[in-house]
Amino acid sequence: MKHIISVLVENKSGVLSHVAGLFSSRGFNISSLAVGETQDPTVSRMTIVVEADERILEQIMKQLNKLIDVIKVQDLTGQDFIDRELVLVKVDAKSSSRSEILQIANTFRARVVDVNPKTVTIEVTGHTKKINAMLQLLLEFGIKDIVRTGRIAMTRTGK
Amino acid sequence: MKHIISVLVENKSGVLSHVAGLFSSRGFNISSLAVGETQDPTVSRMTIVVEADERILEQIMKQLNKLIDVIKVQDLTGQDFIDRELVLVKVDAKSSSRSEILQIANTFRARVVDVNPKTVTIEVTGHTKKINAMLQLLLEFGIKDIVRTGRIAMTRTGK
Repeated sequence: MKHIISVLVENKSGVLSHVAGLFSSRGFNISSLAVGETQDPTVSRMTIVVEADERILEQIMKQLNKLIDVIKVQDLTGQDFIDRELVLVKVDAKSSSRSEILQIANTFRARVVDVNPKTVTIEVTGHTKKINAMLQLLLEFGIKDIVRTGRIAMTRTGK
Repeated sequence: MKHIISVLVENKSGVLSHVAGLFSSRGFNISSLAVGETQDPTVSRMTIVVEADERILEQIMKQLNKLIDVIKVQDLTGQDFIDRELVLVKVDAKSSSRSEILQIANTFRARVVDVNPKTVTIEVTGHTKKINAMLQLLLEFGIKDIVRTGRIAMTRTGK
């Protein structure tokens, strides 16, 4: 099962590699990870998506909590949360296929951020499911490049 | 100076901690990092923003290139690229301040993703500068929580 883990950490050199190391030492592959600053520049938030067995995940969370630079660890799975992802995708686009690509972007409320004679680049945000559905449709035109942020998530109520 | 580094890696356990370790062993703090899958599920792309001295950064890039699971490393700084970030921000909102907050969201073409009697949660994408300008305006209402993806970037031309 996929879990979304939200980790508040001190914004210091080495923290990221410690946290990533905890997961990899158990052989868990992180599906996605996003780290950015919070309202407090000395604190960063990591959002980690990982496929993991419930029992082992619990152990990892305990170990994360023991790291001196980790402030708070939350498994958001099962809670009421908002999650989003941002993706940039560059698609092969001849003049004959361009309007169809723009139509798809429009349907998914995506924004076209670059057009040139050979490609169209689209920015889309939303749930991973919606994004994957759009990418599926764009596949037939030929995808030249994708960059994904990975999911970020926030609980709906309280802090 | 801030550099944006784009790294294509094998989607394997341990790669993230190796890459993060290379930066931290030099004492570099990563400002933001985003990792997600590409069109090829065996390959992930990491986008790393780091404040670093030109000369040492060059060494790190050489070392990254030597890692067996690293496929390609690019320093996008100075190139023509598109960069975006996605942020979720939860703001304190009494009924008296709510309409002003919604107005700010509207100005920055942000989307309101949750409203409850005490808070408004906003999703915004764009350049880091634009996002920071919006966050600055929201500060006076009281920011309860921020989650940022960190920047992702893609070159404008070719692959």
